[in-house]
Amino acid sequence: MKTIEEYQEIVFNEVEKFRSTSRDMDLYDPVKYIMGLGGKRMRPVLTLMGTDLFDGNIEDSYNSAIGIEVFHNFTLLHDDIMDDAPLRRGEATVHEKWNTNAAILSGDVMFVQAFTLVTSCKPEYLRAIIDIFNVTAIEVCEGQQLDMNYETRDDVTLDEYLEMIRLKTSVLVGCSLEMGAVLAGATKEDSRNIYDYGMHLGMAFQIMDDVLDVFGDASIFGKQVGGDILANKKTYLLLKALEDANENQVSELNQWLETPSDGVATQKVQAETLILFREAIALL
Amino acid sequence: MKTIEEYQEIVFNEVEKFRSTSRDMDLYDPVKYIMGLGGKRMRPVLTLMGTDLFDGNIEDSYNSAIGIEVFHNFTLLHDDIMDDAPLRRGEATVHEKWNTNAAILSGDVMFVQAFTLVTSCKPEYLRAIIDIFNVTAIEVCEGQQLDMNYETRDDVTLDEYLEMIRLKTSVLVGCSLEMGAVLAGATKEDSRNIYDYGMHLGMAFQIMDDVLDVFGDASIFGKQVGGDILANKKTYLLLKALEDANENQVSELNQWLETPSDGVATQKVQAETLILFREAIALL
Repeated sequence: MKTIEEYQEIVFNEVEKFRSTSRDMDLYDPVKYIMGLGGKRMRPVLTLMGTDLFDGNIEDSYNSAIGIEVFHNFTLLHDDIMDDAPLRRGEATVHEKWNTNAAILSGDVMFVQAFTLVTSCKPEYLRAIIDIFNVTAIEVCEGQQLDMNYETRDDVTLDEYLEMIRLKTSVLVGCSLEMGAVLAGATKEDSRNIYDYGMHLGMAFQIMDDVLDVFGDASIFGKQVGGDILANKKTYLLLKALEDANENQVSELNQWLETPSDGVATQKVQAETLILFREAIALL
Repeated sequence: MKTIEEYQEIVFNEVEKFRSTSRDMDLYDPVKYIMGLGGKRMRPVLTLMGTDLFDGNIEDSYNSAIGIEVFHNFTLLHDDIMDDAPLRRGEATVHEKWNTNAAILSGDVMFVQAFTLVTSCKPEYLRAIIDIFNVTAIEVCEGQQLDMNYETRDDVTLDEYLEMIRLKTSVLVGCSLEMGAVLAGATKEDSRNIYDYGMHLGMAFQIMDDVLDVFGDASIFGKQVGGDILANKKTYLLLKALEDANENQVSELNQWLETPSDGVATQKVQAETLILFREAIALL
């Protein structure tokens, strides 16, 4: 096994190869752009680790690993349109830099590129790879739909939230590891086990992200601390707070959730919510 | 071989099966809706014909055929967002009936469903089917990009237009037939030949559509005659007219193309353009 940095180095190189061999056509400019915004490239790293773990040749997994990264970035591109997000990794989102039509169509072509790369594997593993990837891609779309639905609902339960992040985020982490294992010729049982491990890793990652938004150090976290609270975002912490709070606390919390986000109110909300969050966390 | 109506009957039934087995989740409502808007289902019919032509068992091609139809409808769904089209087959488009976000995401999930269905074939043909489909899907995206680019360009040549419709429309017709042939175990040469035939059929279909817009009988054509002219759409006829017209005709045509579409002007434009078109056609 290599270090994470060594796997990352390989993935960075392969991503650059993908970017530099893109056809010279304006359709691909947003593809090169979003694939160049960086990130930890954790998913393809996990694919290579999965292959190494089962004594496979990691070079056999390069294409599928990059395919997963292209798929992940495709979902970011379309999600950013749907969320009307201005920034992605500190840079303008594709629909802001180009326009919505360019973002839709470039996303679509990335989706095909992802399928092409993921399925560029040894023939004996093709059927298994397609099946894992198709099921996962369907689930990611279902997760995004739930996420959008939950924005306008005020009765989302913690279980519903966990199922949403499982679909939207965690299954792709599981898929990344499982693909790596499959491409090393791992048994079906081992492949499923590593998928489950990856899925739980994905759940932990998302919940940690929610926690860091409240308790993190901005200089390490890389995002504004309290951003989820200001946006009234339904996170694990908010839903846990609502579930564990007593009647008075629920009513106070709901009052703040319904208060428009002017400067004074939001600071107060943030302070109040932080206290409730900490109380909720103490109950865990 | 069966009659076209018999193939259509099979396809209609399979499409209904696809619609009725969709998961009961709001993500799939637009999918069921657009797949229920009808149409001739020509692409899946061609897939079944391709299989029959090479003495295959057409039941082996049902999934891939329906996958092509789902893919085609996915492209219509996303194209309608990009064109801001209010109607599709006389009914509200998905982004009008729901909203843009629902249309983007339901389109994305249809894309996965299309891949899943197309790749639900006998293992010995899987590699070939994936390769044809991925190349075609990329080309369709490239064709849509060219179509969008050409809307704002006033120097599109006839050759550029033909290449655009080849990518946007014709390659999928070729792909439909070729997949059918591949699934019947046709040789590589036969498969490529039937692809070429389908591609040219697709070109002829699109040019015929352009011609019918000007010369067709509205009651048979099913669309407003002259619609392309009113929309200043770059069609084979307009580009051919511009190419074959003398200097005076070009300048007059350009004048009408630049005239805003108020009622009087458009009627006059339509009449003038029709005359030029007929002159151009006479030169063919």
